Amino acid sequence: MIGRAVIAQIGGPTRVINASLVGAIRAALKNRDTISELWGSLHGPEGLIKGNFIDLSAQNSRTLTRVSRTPSAALYSSRKKIGKDISEEEVFNALKKYNLRFFFYIGGNDSADNANTINEIAKKNGYELTCFHIPKTVDNDLRVNDHTPGFGSAARYVANVFAGDNYDNLSLGGVKLNIVMGRSAGFLTAASALARQKEGDAPHLIYVPEVPFEKEMFLRDLDSAMSKYGRAIIAISEGIEDKEGRPIAWDGKTLDSHGNPQFSGSSFLADELTRWVEESRITKRVRADTLGYAQRSYLETISEQDWKEAYTAGRETVRLAVSGYQSGSVAILRNPRKEYGYNLQLTSLESVAKTPRKMPLEFIKGTNDVTSEFIDYAKPLIGGPLPIRGELKMIRPYLS
Amino acid sequence: MIGRAVIAQIGGPTRVINASLVGAIRAALKNRDTISELWGSLHGPEGLIKGNFIDLSAQNSRTLTRVSRTPSAALYSSRKKIGKDISEEEVFNALKKYNLRFFFYIGGNDSADNANTINEIAKKNGYELTCFHIPKTVDNDLRVNDHTPGFGSAARYVANVFAGDNYDNLSLGGVKLNIVMGRSAGFLTAASALARQKEGDAPHLIYVPEVPFEKEMFLRDLDSAMSKYGRAIIAISEGIEDKEGRPIAWDGKTLDSHGNPQFSGSSFLADELTRWVEESRITKRVRADTLGYAQRSYLETISEQDWKEAYTAGRETVRLAVSGYQSGSVAILRNPRKEYGYNLQLTSLESVAKTPRKMPLEFIKGTNDVTSEFIDYAKPLIGGPLPIRGELKMIRPYLS
Repeated sequence: MIGRAVIAQIGGPTRVINASLVGAIRAALKNRDTISELWGSLHGPEGLIKGNFIDLSAQNSRTLTRVSRTPSAALYSSRKKIGKDISEEEVFNALKKYNLRFFFYIGGNDSADNANTINEIAKKNGYELTCFHIPKTVDNDLRVNDHTPGFGSAARYVANVFAGDNYDNLSLGGVKLNIVMGRSAGFLTAASALARQKEGDAPHLIYVPEVPFEKEMFLRDLDSAMSKYGRAIIAISEGIEDKEGRPIAWDGKTLDSHGNPQFSGSSFLADELTRWVEESRITKRVRADTLGYAQRSYLETISEQDWKEAYTAGRETVRLAVSGYQSGSVAILRNPRKEYGYNLQLTSLESVAKTPRKMPLEFIKGTNDVTSEFIDYAKPLIGGPLPIRGELKMIRPYLS
Repeated sequence: MIGRAVIAQIGGPTRVINASLVGAIRAALKNRDTISELWGSLHGPEGLIKGNFIDLSAQNSRTLTRVSRTPSAALYSSRKKIGKDISEEEVFNALKKYNLRFFFYIGGNDSADNANTINEIAKKNGYELTCFHIPKTVDNDLRVNDHTPGFGSAARYVANVFAGDNYDNLSLGGVKLNIVMGRSAGFLTAASALARQKEGDAPHLIYVPEVPFEKEMFLRDLDSAMSKYGRAIIAISEGIEDKEGRPIAWDGKTLDSHGNPQFSGSSFLADELTRWVEESRITKRVRADTLGYAQRSYLETISEQDWKEAYTAGRETVRLAVSGYQSGSVAILRNPRKEYGYNLQLTSLESVAKTPRKMPLEFIKGTNDVTSEFIDYAKPLIGGPLPIRGELKMIRPYLS
């Protein structure tokens, strides 16, 4: 199989999604005998159906290096959902129209599902297509994978926020609520625990979407945290739901462009929980921050481990494609050795498509914390320890 | 003058306020012939009047090094306002009671004012007291000073947020509002401009408190930014006010512990401006982030220049005090040379007390941008360039 290839990016950007892109581009450029031309589709599937392409083989090496270190999707992303705003048939027809024989789609579980459908249509129509999904998501919720490119860097950012906020709250007291991204999996909220250096450090309570969230439980937990620590920093996932599965974060009306309840870019959850704490009279000082897009795009914080794995995932996917594998997604698995190491494994598109995974139960401690298993799991992914910090020793002087 | 010294920290924490603390501690420990004992007052003036001290001479060097790199106030801060919750007389009486002969107060303009009053009371009562203020504030609004310890690191954080968000917004489009700290001076909001690498980069509009903010003006600006760039990232100071001086950020009721309108920890401004943009129908996609306490406490981002100057300010203040100077504040001045350099200068407590400064007019361009003079001013303060990043070249393939 020799022919023209196209790459597209889709969904919420990450800090290292462009590392995967550049890894894929560089591998493709080394295999010009198989991939004769290399195009990028701008704005995901929108570029495909509109014929809006750029020539990725015409980029110089310096540009590619810079792009590989740049947050967000260099090919631009899209809010159009395939299977709703654009059909898989439309995408397939575009692939056919431009005689594209390799399709690389960098995205999450929905994108793997879209790639799978496109692959099936190609097969049914007897169109020779090599069709691969390259994983990315700060939510870390792709099945089969031990973890996903994008998570490590976002986790490092979240840990840095909580590590700094720990001392802010220690100095000024009261309750601090920090709302963290993650619609259905609690990994990124749980990563706040990587900020802890010793007993008593923030976060003091952690709420993930995997555990039903109830007002009474929350205020009871807060009351005991305040008794124990005299202060409290709380990590709360934007995706928390009550026992009936109703999101606490949602104002009940705002929808995103996919028709899902819109959480990000909204401070509804922070405001609601602040009101609960104020009304409870547990403390006089309550502050809340809704951690923003900086979680996925903050320039200076990157996990080098995450970057390397993202780059490798892009590169290896193209290598598989030019080696004659026809479809799939590369999954990141962990070596069973004590020291951290990873392997890539080719998995089917179906195996990572559709249903996202949740945090394993062994990572969740009770209703408001994570286990040491989670810490062991997440620590190698953020790319080295956080900067040094410490506290004065509370040695009393002799008051003469 | 030989005697016991006390140090206290007050007000909003910064990333490098502990560098000043440790600079002061180390200088004091080298001058034990003058400063016989060195205490820290916990929670600012509260520790003084309650006799809540720790022995700063008993801290080991490793602890001091770690503390010097730790965000926020290691001696803890206070929300009690001197001159309101605690009188300067109470503080002076505590200094007298514990026979404290050196008083070092790390804070902003209000703290310089408090130190000045305490100094005056001591003089009036014939109590020998050496009384110094050590500057800190992320707002950068202390008079006499070219800039203030704490600003450079906060500015670096803000620049990193906008530099990353630039690509997020480029990839997904629409309008992004980022609310930045700064109650009355626009320096930190203006620092968002340090994120720009080339024409068209975010931020596309910058609103500082020095320029009256009007809804019509804002929507008109936004409309032209959208026409020009097809997208818009907007930096907005939490302290913006209308022509009558009414804060746009304030919900009209919530007060902080000082009885001032509370902005931080509130998303009122972001929600209000989001509603304006939505109602204007200029764009379908509007997102807003209120940059949180990470601006002053994010662990991993520090301006080494800022750190060094904060440390030096602490150290030099103590050196002045042990050399026989009786009171004042060290101000940071800039060398007139082209290459960045700074000098410290002893200034009077009155000269930096009370009234904060605003951004100079030569830093403000029209009603929604900063000048190149501001960039030249702020660039050396953030401690080196931001990480590399770049964009793909929009080279079209030959569509055969």
